Amino acid sequence: MPEYLWRPPNQGPVQAIDTYIKSQEERFLNELLDLLRIPSVSADPKYKADVARCAEAVKKRMEEAGLDKVEICSTPGHPIVYGEKIIDPAKPTVLVYGHYDVQPPDPLDLWHSGPFEPVIKDGMIYARGSADDKGQFYMHVKAIETMIKNGGLPCNVKVMIEGEEEVGSDNLGDFVKANKPRLKADVVLISDTAMIANDVPSINTGLRGLSYVEVEVTGPNRDLHSGVYGGAVANPINTLCAMIASLHDADGRVNIPGFYDQVVELSAAERKALAEAPFDEKEWMKDLGVSAVKGEKGYTSDERCTIRPTLDVNGIWGGYIGEGAKTVLPGKAFAKLSMRLVPDQKSDAITKLFKEHFEKIAPPYVKVVVRPHHGGEAAVTPIDSPAYLAASKAMEETYGKKPIPTRGGGSIPIVALFEQELGLKTVLFGFGLDSDNIHSPNEKYGVFNYFQGIRTIPRFFHHYAASPR
Amino acid sequence: MPEYLWRPPNQGPVQAIDTYIKSQEERFLNELLDLLRIPSVSADPKYKADVARCAEAVKKRMEEAGLDKVEICSTPGHPIVYGEKIIDPAKPTVLVYGHYDVQPPDPLDLWHSGPFEPVIKDGMIYARGSADDKGQFYMHVKAIETMIKNGGLPCNVKVMIEGEEEVGSDNLGDFVKANKPRLKADVVLISDTAMIANDVPSINTGLRGLSYVEVEVTGPNRDLHSGVYGGAVANPINTLCAMIASLHDADGRVNIPGFYDQVVELSAAERKALAEAPFDEKEWMKDLGVSAVKGEKGYTSDERCTIRPTLDVNGIWGGYIGEGAKTVLPGKAFAKLSMRLVPDQKSDAITKLFKEHFEKIAPPYVKVVVRPHHGGEAAVTPIDSPAYLAASKAMEETYGKKPIPTRGGGSIPIVALFEQELGLKTVLFGFGLDSDNIHSPNEKYGVFNYFQGIRTIPRFFHHYAASPR
Repeated sequence: MPEYLWRPPNQGPVQAIDTYIKSQEERFLNELLDLLRIPSVSADPKYKADVARCAEAVKKRMEEAGLDKVEICSTPGHPIVYGEKIIDPAKPTVLVYGHYDVQPPDPLDLWHSGPFEPVIKDGMIYARGSADDKGQFYMHVKAIETMIKNGGLPCNVKVMIEGEEEVGSDNLGDFVKANKPRLKADVVLISDTAMIANDVPSINTGLRGLSYVEVEVTGPNRDLHSGVYGGAVANPINTLCAMIASLHDADGRVNIPGFYDQVVELSAAERKALAEAPFDEKEWMKDLGVSAVKGEKGYTSDERCTIRPTLDVNGIWGGYIGEGAKTVLPGKAFAKLSMRLVPDQKSDAITKLFKEHFEKIAPPYVKVVVRPHHGGEAAVTPIDSPAYLAASKAMEETYGKKPIPTRGGGSIPIVALFEQELGLKTVLFGFGLDSDNIHSPNEKYGVFNYFQGIRTIPRFFHHYAASPR
Repeated sequence: MPEYLWRPPNQGPVQAIDTYIKSQEERFLNELLDLLRIPSVSADPKYKADVARCAEAVKKRMEEAGLDKVEICSTPGHPIVYGEKIIDPAKPTVLVYGHYDVQPPDPLDLWHSGPFEPVIKDGMIYARGSADDKGQFYMHVKAIETMIKNGGLPCNVKVMIEGEEEVGSDNLGDFVKANKPRLKADVVLISDTAMIANDVPSINTGLRGLSYVEVEVTGPNRDLHSGVYGGAVANPINTLCAMIASLHDADGRVNIPGFYDQVVELSAAERKALAEAPFDEKEWMKDLGVSAVKGEKGYTSDERCTIRPTLDVNGIWGGYIGEGAKTVLPGKAFAKLSMRLVPDQKSDAITKLFKEHFEKIAPPYVKVVVRPHHGGEAAVTPIDSPAYLAASKAMEETYGKKPIPTRGGGSIPIVALFEQELGLKTVLFGFGLDSDNIHSPNEKYGVFNYFQGIRTIPRFFHHYAASPR
């Protein structure tokens, strides 16, 4: 068993916990690898049985950790696994949220090892879901086990791990609404984000919302020979390209009337505070292999992917895409597009805005259908709450540095839902890194990060339970 | 055996031939169906053995028809089948060209029956290659058999059936250059085009050229999470769309500097003559299911797809194209594009022009690679040659109407090559219809058209052999 950058435990109330974690290191890691071997891809129906199998595995591990009333809660989609441990109703309750489903592994040919055959190389666990989110939610399961086995939990905990985060958490919303008393808590704790670097700890205090749509452009009623008809019949691919191109203006702004109407502009002071987080654009560009950046005029790269809304094509297809050449003028062309939203843009409103605009700009020679996929609201979390302060203190102990508050660009739609339905604020207690290749081939998660999370989470519980309220 | 719109034979020198064809109808049809069962898709390497098997079948049938020296000539790609029958070196020689390879059958889900399981419904043979070009070249094999069995050929014939027409005929060019004495002839006869309607016979006197390219646009060096990076890193799909959109101007013209420099503009008189061919735009739009047409300003729909050059996207792909949603900012996006060319645009020059232009307009935040696929030259054939007049007379006899000369929009690159390398003009003796769905799902060819070709071709041979020279 290699040492995986093990750091000596800090002095403090949870020293026994560090010793226990060290003694269980191999098992804690192998249990995660077992979870990573289950291809729980929620987007693709062909993995349905695997997703169900993963829920069973999560349930078993939660029971083993010492949680009570562990249950697989079925939904119209993939199930939710729920469990809790109430030590004293008078004490505060932490609601841990995570997801056991993963993104599709495509494109498979770019993986250096099988996406569901985890391998550890240079201290990194390579597998789909290693960082997003199996590796991160499982830190909580192991942290809870550790606390229970070493003096007990300092407060109550409820754990809800869902299976549809990567497809919009549609059924979790209904579950939360139907289980408000059961989910009653004081704060939500989620590890599903990244920090700046392993030596620059940070806590994400904002997330972007999402509006995801699929568009279908139909030209002629069948595929045509591009020689016989080309030039006289509108090609739906060319038309789709022109329509997509029109969605940005020359300044890199989203060119949909009304798109920015609700956007909260940050003050100069707020932008200055965010700019204090270290960001080396040259290194960042080098890592991405790009020789120029592109985005909305008037904002930095860091701002463009956190505090500003965007529109990206996530997939496009049409015509002949096999090997060789086919001279076809296709009948249809398709694209998947998503918009990242910021406060106070509302997902449903933006989806409606997009749909109306895209249908309106459709030329008369094509038919356009816009199908809304899923969405979620942007969220900003407070940095002066007892929970944020407890998280900051816990990280300062294990990292030796006070974490920097940052804003993230991704979306965890459930954060806004928790606030709306349960009146709860969230602490985004993420231990990943931007370089973890989440949603990409060769997704990875540091073994160091995994154990650092397991060590830090119990400290959060202790500080949070002890904080004045 | 149904009657398939059989018409009583006309009086003339080939009456015995009509009677023979009638007596062999069932066998002539079944032999074609057997050929259609072989998936000889030249573009896709996985069909390589099927293409070879198809060449063997063609060889066997050519031998059975009575041709001599039938041979499978291997090339660096798919083989060419060649055979001949020289009855008298003093008599003229007709070189018949066709191709036994077919387009890929995708998209498979739109076929009502298997593309390689031919079915006859309402007098139409449904199968990939039924019209393009197995059904059409096999008319010649059966016409030759019929002539040999009924008084003998009136002149010499050479038959060359290739296997790479749908992928650019690259190796046929070398074959022709290396076999000039063997291919010596007086005229080329090709059935690989369409006529206006079964009651409006026509002969195609012009074809467009082709330039086919594949483009690859690379943004970041890997697929990224669209939330973490979206807005700050250029999305190669969005970029590709914008680049493609820029390739046409507001008047529907191809927006590549120099693209029209070599285009031969037709005179008003020439355009007037072409406009005499019946063309019902409303019926044509209804058949295609489009409510508006689109094309180059200043030209009719008929002109746009025959005498004007075009640019069409034949395929596009990038990002996540599976079911459901994936919030990916992809590393790459791809498209296949082709340009249809008219005299005197040169395929290689236009490909070079496209490549230079597309690379030039690439923004600094992406890398662009343009890969030329294949091309071919436009061709115009004379309407006063002995061969054209013989073809016109033959059609007039079997259709009861003099055929109208028309211009076609597709490309048969070999027509220009025959002129250049062998000094031969071509007669485009096509018996298909534009509604045959060639290159599309549910390709079909009329049983009537098939037998009409077998009846008309021997009449061509007799008139051509008898024509003064």
